[in-house]
Amino acid sequence: MQIEILRLSHRIRRDPRLSTHLALTARAFLASKIYYSGDKDSSLEATINKVTSQFGGNFKIEHIEDPVKLINEKKDEEFLIIHLSVYGLTLNSILKKIKVQKDILVIVGGEKVPPEIFKESDYNVSVTQQPISEVSALAVFLHVILRGEELNAKFSNAKIQIIPSAKGKEFKK
Amino acid sequence: MQIEILRLSHRIRRDPRLSTHLALTARAFLASKIYYSGDKDSSLEATINKVTSQFGGNFKIEHIEDPVKLINEKKDEEFLIIHLSVYGLTLNSILKKIKVQKDILVIVGGEKVPPEIFKESDYNVSVTQQPISEVSALAVFLHVILRGEELNAKFSNAKIQIIPSAKGKEFKK
Repeated sequence: MQIEILRLSHRIRRDPRLSTHLALTARAFLASKIYYSGDKDSSLEATINKVTSQFGGNFKIEHIEDPVKLINEKKDEEFLIIHLSVYGLTLNSILKKIKVQKDILVIVGGEKVPPEIFKESDYNVSVTQQPISEVSALAVFLHVILRGEELNAKFSNAKIQIIPSAKGKEFKK
Repeated sequence: MQIEILRLSHRIRRDPRLSTHLALTARAFLASKIYYSGDKDSSLEATINKVTSQFGGNFKIEHIEDPVKLINEKKDEEFLIIHLSVYGLTLNSILKKIKVQKDILVIVGGEKVPPEIFKESDYNVSVTQQPISEVSALAVFLHVILRGEELNAKFSNAKIQIIPSAKGKEFKK
């Protein structure tokens, strides 16, 4: 299963930290790539690429202009398109439908998500039916899809590796 | 099981959106209260209280001056103290130890977490051993502890209730 993320409508003045947390979450929860629309943000890209270079793996970040065009390209590649929205169907209700598929594009908003995104997605999915955060929605969605596989995943080519510790801060370099 | 959250070192200029996302996540994942240290932020409190008044439940937010004092009070009340840190023990390795306990205080940083927090916590716990986000770490930790109970939880006294929908935006008022 290949997992890619699309973050809609990044705003360079308002969202840099949330988009950073979102991209780091995508990487740690075994997505291979995050696309983002809205403002191109070289500083965001540099932050994420630095983490990947230090902590390993092959996670990519790419700015795109047109989310609907990307969605259509991913449909042609037979990705299942999942849009996380508080208004969507419950996570439990769509789980069986997701398991049969191979690759997934997970879309997260963005302040105002245009109606095309709801329409073009195979499933609009809500994590809890309560206002939460795109960061927590993405994390729990991927945790459930991966059945917790991410909790003990190892990343290739890591220059820094954190060693689980009861009270201290241990890592290998 | 009663779940409370402690958010360390909130900075009013830098963290308002992340702390908002963290508090909303705490509420949706069935915590009863979030304490926060650092800058007192009336706007953060108003945002969270407004969501609770609209979407229901009894979630509380409270500013505190001294995190270590709160931790000691919660220990006296026999709460288990869990500090989420990338450096901690793996989530799977401490799960059995958590299940026997009744109430939990979950602590999340903060840029630089003082050593006392590592020392005073019963368990320092890492969600993935990778740099992620306090928002995603909290969500996945609570999801695992609650065994997904939060996914279909109903909140009492909700003025707005979101109705799961395949393509649209539906809610009851």
